[in-house]
Parts: sequence; structure tokens; C-alpha cells
Amino acid sequence: MLQASYHVRSDARAIEARARAIAVEQSVEMPVAAIDDNFVKSEIVGRVEAIRELADGQFEVRIALSAATVGGDAGQLINMLYGNTSIHDDVVLHDVELPSDLVQMFGGPRHGLDGLRQRVGAAKRPLTCSALKPQGLPAEKLADLAQKFARGGIDYIKDDHGLADQAYSPFAARVEAIAAALAAHGAPVRYVPSLSGDLDSMRAQIAIAIDAGIDTMMVAPMIAGFSNFHRLVREYPGVAFMAHPTMAGAARVAPPLLIGKLFRLLGADAVVFPNHGGRFGYSPETCGRLARAALADWHGLRPAVPVPAGGMTPARVPEMLDFYGADLMLLIGGGLLAARERLTAETAAFVAAVRQYR
Amino acid sequence: MLQASYHVRSDARAIEARARAIAVEQSVEMPVAAIDDNFVKSEIVGRVEAIRELADGQFEVRIALSAATVGGDAGQLINMLYGNTSIHDDVVLHDVELPSDLVQMFGGPRHGLDGLRQRVGAAKRPLTCSALKPQGLPAEKLADLAQKFARGGIDYIKDDHGLADQAYSPFAARVEAIAAALAAHGAPVRYVPSLSGDLDSMRAQIAIAIDAGIDTMMVAPMIAGFSNFHRLVREYPGVAFMAHPTMAGAARVAPPLLIGKLFRLLGADAVVFPNHGGRFGYSPETCGRLARAALADWHGLRPAVPVPAGGMTPARVPEMLDFYGADLMLLIGGGLLAARERLTAETAAFVAAVRQYR
Repeated sequence: MLQASYHVRSDARAIEARARAIAVEQSVEMPVAAIDDNFVKSEIVGRVEAIRELADGQFEVRIALSAATVGGDAGQLINMLYGNTSIHDDVVLHDVELPSDLVQMFGGPRHGLDGLRQRVGAAKRPLTCSALKPQGLPAEKLADLAQKFARGGIDYIKDDHGLADQAYSPFAARVEAIAAALAAHGAPVRYVPSLSGDLDSMRAQIAIAIDAGIDTMMVAPMIAGFSNFHRLVREYPGVAFMAHPTMAGAARVAPPLLIGKLFRLLGADAVVFPNHGGRFGYSPETCGRLARAALADWHGLRPAVPVPAGGMTPARVPEMLDFYGADLMLLIGGGLLAARERLTAETAAFVAAVRQYR
Repeated sequence: MLQASYHVRSDARAIEARARAIAVEQSVEMPVAAIDDNFVKSEIVGRVEAIRELADGQFEVRIALSAATVGGDAGQLINMLYGNTSIHDDVVLHDVELPSDLVQMFGGPRHGLDGLRQRVGAAKRPLTCSALKPQGLPAEKLADLAQKFARGGIDYIKDDHGLADQAYSPFAARVEAIAAALAAHGAPVRYVPSLSGDLDSMRAQIAIAIDAGIDTMMVAPMIAGFSNFHRLVREYPGVAFMAHPTMAGAARVAPPLLIGKLFRLLGADAVVFPNHGGRFGYSPETCGRLARAALADWHGLRPAVPVPAGGMTPARVPEMLDFYGADLMLLIGGGLLAARERLTAETAAFVAAVRQYR
């Protein structure tokens, strides 16, 4: 069984009926009294397992759903956990426990924390990352920025998630220019291009990137679709995937579950998320839980690297490392780019702050 | 330019800065002061065009975004309209106006209202629809239900959106059994199977369905991913697509925009949505706007059929037709299935109520 837990806004008198309605919506989606099939009644209809008051008017509801309804597909997993219920504004999908065989089937990260450290020759230290932007720049200008980041000693350089396959910087031209610029540099820095479009477009982009010697790429699972992201993970076992949270919605699916647990389940080796105190509203508690979910022991999956981001600056490095520890990739984009002609020096200072941290 | 409008919760003193922040987040995602490229500054950075107070603490913000950032991809369209901003809980994506050439490029429905009427030999009347459920039933039992709906004279019989490719009712076996049952029936009733999985899985399912003589299918764009849904529409011009709103979220993207306008833009011939007064919380105003958006003249696109659903009953037929008019598909699932052994008679009564309505 899937054990899904929901946070539901309700008054105390109504919560039992509301919990049963969610269990029905997320399973048979019809009046239970009209079901006469015994298998469906005993195995498929969702069951309310527990209701717990969290605060006045706020309840945690745990519902058991049949794992058979997932049919081995990642899109269907999120459909069964939250599909129609996502349309109700009184319910947040809070967490889920999955049977071990389902977790094994999805498989999680192929590379994870250790793999991403090995790629850049890092021991147990935190990793560093920056982002290529703004969009609208031609490939050569992005390659120039990449080279400056590389000279500053950064580990990973990812595309901004807005870089797709636009006329002003087509994917193929961008990858070629940036790969060439970094090859000239020599160090084990990795460029992480952002994949976009339908499954076939993403496959074509992966082929271009692999040809250019790239082994780490970024996907936005909420836009690509869970099933397609998971398909890429299975088709390209040599590629490490960083997951971007764009279109993840605010607090509709709890971020520690969606980004920390589910993106990892599908195979994200690193998960980007908005750090507290930056441009987004996640609380320190949410961020801490998300990072722990990405790293925790969970049915033998490899840990995914937490990548807090979104308005970070070099000044926050010590505080972030105090908060998260060393199993981390620190991503500073705009906060480095704002240094303009001092970009390489500012990158080097960021890298040094991370490496010197004890 | 894309003209995106957002509804933003803010106090009056902060709204101008908040609007500018959204414009930056949805375009260059970095400090504007750090950008020296003239093309990026003049063409790519989002521009706040208007701010209007809707109510105390509630504003409408209109932002112009470059159409070039979309790069012709449907996933990138939603990424540019709402991607990172979806993570903020003070902002709803309310509406968008697109340049005519972008709308033509995406292309909208291939069949739309007229095509779905022609398939079942209906003139200008509302269409009728029901749903096969509960999940967990084997193919033969679903085929038996389909036959009963058909005997009652229904136009369309769709899979419940939870029916995927599960062991208890694999897609191929289900389609074969239901197509055979309806072929025996004779009338122009259409079975609408629900597609699931990654792009290749959906293609394989479409091939199976086409082999069985099926020409109308259902997709969940928020799970399949916008780009993949749009790819299917282009690859299978003979197939009419019904879009299901699962995972659409509550009020994060305004339903008239997401379901009425964007799903139609990508090619949905019919759009299922939760009717007011049923199991979901959309207001009559939201439902009316959604249906009008699906049908409205818009850069020459074919109209998509509005399909209000979610806890509807035959008793509501006259009221719904008063509200929506005749350019409609009425979908009653559980409300018919609850009749159990009287399913055919109840279906016939539903069909008669629709046909007799003046």
C-alpha cells in the first residue's frame, strides 16, 4: 500500500467525512455504495487509516492506497497520490510512504551525492555551482561566463532553467560553445545544460550533450512530466540529473515530499530548491526537512544532493553550511553575476569560502 | 510579446517592487543592474505594463514577456508564464494574451466542437458522456458497463482518469474488450480511453487504440507534460483529444486560463473541468468563464468542447443547459453508475433529458 498523508483544513465535525471523500477521490472516484466487485471493495478503495488534529481547524489525514493502481508508472504515481485532490484548495499532499519494492522499481538516483562529488574530484566537501544567465545572451557570451566561473574554480555550471532551445541561443550551439570553452580550461568543472521540450526533443538534446562530453544535465520534472523524466533516467544510466523545481507550485505538494523525496525517487541526483531567506518563501524548517529527505536512508536509494538556491550570496556560505552540513551543493547565480567584471574573483572567493569552511 | 496577467496579494506600498520582481523572475532571473547586453535589456527583460487594484490588498499586474523566450515549445511556454513564480504563494497566473503567430503555431484543436458532434452524428445539441469506473475492475466488467451506457444512448464513454495500464486491467486488454463490446452495439457511440505514461507509452497506446477503430482519446496535460501533449496532437491529426484536469492544482493558475485557454491552445478538442456545485470548489463564475474561454473566437482556433463534470447527476441537466447553453458535453459518471442494475435506463433518461431540452 501507499501511505499518503494529507494536511486538510476542516472543522472538527466535518473532518471524518472529508477524509473519506479524499480516500474515494484518490482511488475509485465514485459512490462506494455502487461498487459490488469484491476485489475493488477490499483492495482498491482508499482507506482512512488515521486522523490527527495538528492545530485548530488543521488535520493530518493518513490514507492507504493500493500500490497496484500505480501500474509501475511515475505519472500515475502522482495522479494516484494527488491528481483530482490537487484541485481542492483545502488539501496539501504532505508525505507518502511507499512499499520497498515500488521504491526499488523506480530506483532513485544513479549517481547521487557520491557520483556528483567524484565527477569533480571532491572528497567530502560541499560542492559549488553557479548558473548561466540571463537568457537572451548568444552562445558565445554564455560560454564566456562559463569560462569565468571555471577560472574561479567552481564545480558545476548549470543553465538557467529559462534557457531552452530559443533562436537567440539554440541548445546545440550553446552546448558546443560552452563545452569547448570548458575543455580549454582543463579542470574537472561540469557544465549542466537544461533539457526542454517533449521526450524526443530531450533525447536529441542529450545526444548532443553526450557528444560534447557532457555527463550531467538538468530537467524540470513538473514540466517534462514525471513519466518522461523517469524514462530519461532509465535510458541514460551514465548521465547524472539535476532536478529543477520550476512549476512545483507553492505548498500544494509539501516541498520536502515533492522535491526531496519524489524527484529523488525518480532518479534526480541533485535537487535544486529555493533556500529560506532568499527570493522564495520556504521556511528554514521546510528547507531542512527537504534536504534531509533528499539525503536520508530510504529503502537503499542513493542520496540526492540538496542544492539550495534562489537569491543566495557568497556572504551566506558559512551560515548555509552551518545549517545544512557538508552534504550539499551551494548554488549562487545572480549573486556572482552581479560582480560583472570581477566575476572570476568573486567566484574564487565563493569557492574558497566553501573549501575553507570547517 | 506575451501579455501575462497575475493576481498578486500585496500591500499597496510594496506592489510596484513586487511586480518588477515577478517580471524579472519570469524573464532573466538575475539582478537587472548586472546585465549589460543591449538585446537582453531591451527585448528579454520582462516589463511591468500595468498595475490595477482589484480589492484591498489584491492587485492585477500585467507583464510583457518576450515571445522569443518560448522557443516554440509548449513546456517552455508555461515555464516562462509561471515556472518559478508558481513557487510563490502570493501570485496566481490569471490570464495571458499571446501574439497571433504563436497561437497559430501551437494550433489548437484539430476537431473541436464540430468534430466531436460529427463523430456521433449530433447536430447542434449538447453531447453526453459518462465514465468507466471504478478502477480495479477487469476489462470485461468495464466492457459490460460500456455496453450498458451505449444501450442507454450515450455519445461518449471515457475512461476514469485513474485507469492507466495496471495489471488488473491492462490498457490493451481494456481497449480490445470495450471496442468489441461497442462494435457489437452498432451506434456511433465513442469510447475514449485514457492515455498514460511517457511519450512513447502514450504513442504505443494510441497505436493500439487506432487499431481497435478508436478516434478519440483522453490525456492529462499536467501529468503528460505540455510539450508531450502538444507533440501527440501534431503526430495524430486524426485523433480528437479530451483533456483531463488532474494535477491542475487549486487556483494557482486560473482555471479559465489553464483549462479553457491553454489546454485548448495545445489542441484539446474537449476539456473536462469540475462543475460548480459538485465535488469541487470552482464557482459558477469560474465555470462560466472557463466554458466561454474554450468556445470563444481566439485567433481563428477551433472551439474546444466544455465538459463540466465531478459529481453531476441527471437532475442537474436542465439547470446546466440553462447555464452553459448547447455547446457542451455533459459528463455524468458516478451519478449514473450509482443506478447499478438500472444503469441502462438511467443513462437513457439522462440522454433523453439532454435531447428534449429546449
